[in-house]
Amino acid sequence: MDDAEANVTVDFENIAKQFVEYYYKTFDSDRSQLAPLYGPDSMLTFEAAPSQGVATIVQKLVDLPFKLVQHQVATLDAQPSNERGGILVIVSGALLVEEEKRPMSYTQTFQLMPKDNSYYVFNDIFRLVYPAA
Amino acid sequence: MDDAEANVTVDFENIAKQFVEYYYKTFDSDRSQLAPLYGPDSMLTFEAAPSQGVATIVQKLVDLPFKLVQHQVATLDAQPSNERGGILVIVSGALLVEEEKRPMSYTQTFQLMPKDNSYYVFNDIFRLVYPAA
Repeated sequence: MDDAEANVTVDFENIAKQFVEYYYKTFDSDRSQLAPLYGPDSMLTFEAAPSQGVATIVQKLVDLPFKLVQHQVATLDAQPSNERGGILVIVSGALLVEEEKRPMSYTQTFQLMPKDNSYYVFNDIFRLVYPAA
Repeated sequence: MDDAEANVTVDFENIAKQFVEYYYKTFDSDRSQLAPLYGPDSMLTFEAAPSQGVATIVQKLVDLPFKLVQHQVATLDAQPSNERGGILVIVSGALLVEEEKRPMSYTQTFQLMPKDNSYYVFNDIFRLVYPAA
């Protein structure tokens, strides 16, 4: 418990940053490799469609109708999410798919939970953000 | 504990919806009245600026440089955030301030934590989302 509390105080912004870099690098090169980041109780809501558990979530990501994809992170926020060392990570940015020249805006919220001296994604919510005007 | 778990299973989407309606109705009419929704350990990150605790958070919101404001919710996602009945709420939408005709896109993530048969906002992260293209 003391260790977890120390982690929350010291490291959550760095952990969030490292996670986001690793997550999108992996997503954009071979998203089937994201499986180790999820667990059996992980939840994904992707454009309102819910998935739960490693296999279901990774299948959902692999089945998305594009091959080439690039995430460009514009903003990254992080906050401690509970007293056990969880971390909320909120990203906004641009998504480029295939040969499409015009990027789309998106926002993605993760909750990372500590597990075995590392973290896994417990919550994952993805939304495209359309221009308001 | 059984009650909390039942809540998570049954109610989190409805609670999220009711919370969002109440939150923005209150924000847009008199945002100083949001104080009861926060607690001493609540965190707000508003456009990267952090605040903690009821008084500091509400002062930050009250001091925002606009009087007339209107939030229009476009998407609302919710997921259970822990086994104690926490709820993640992710909103995207449009923000209109003063007499400005062109809305701005925004995204806001809340984590609601159960307390005394109700909920309070433990995490609150707000970001404007600029068009990617």
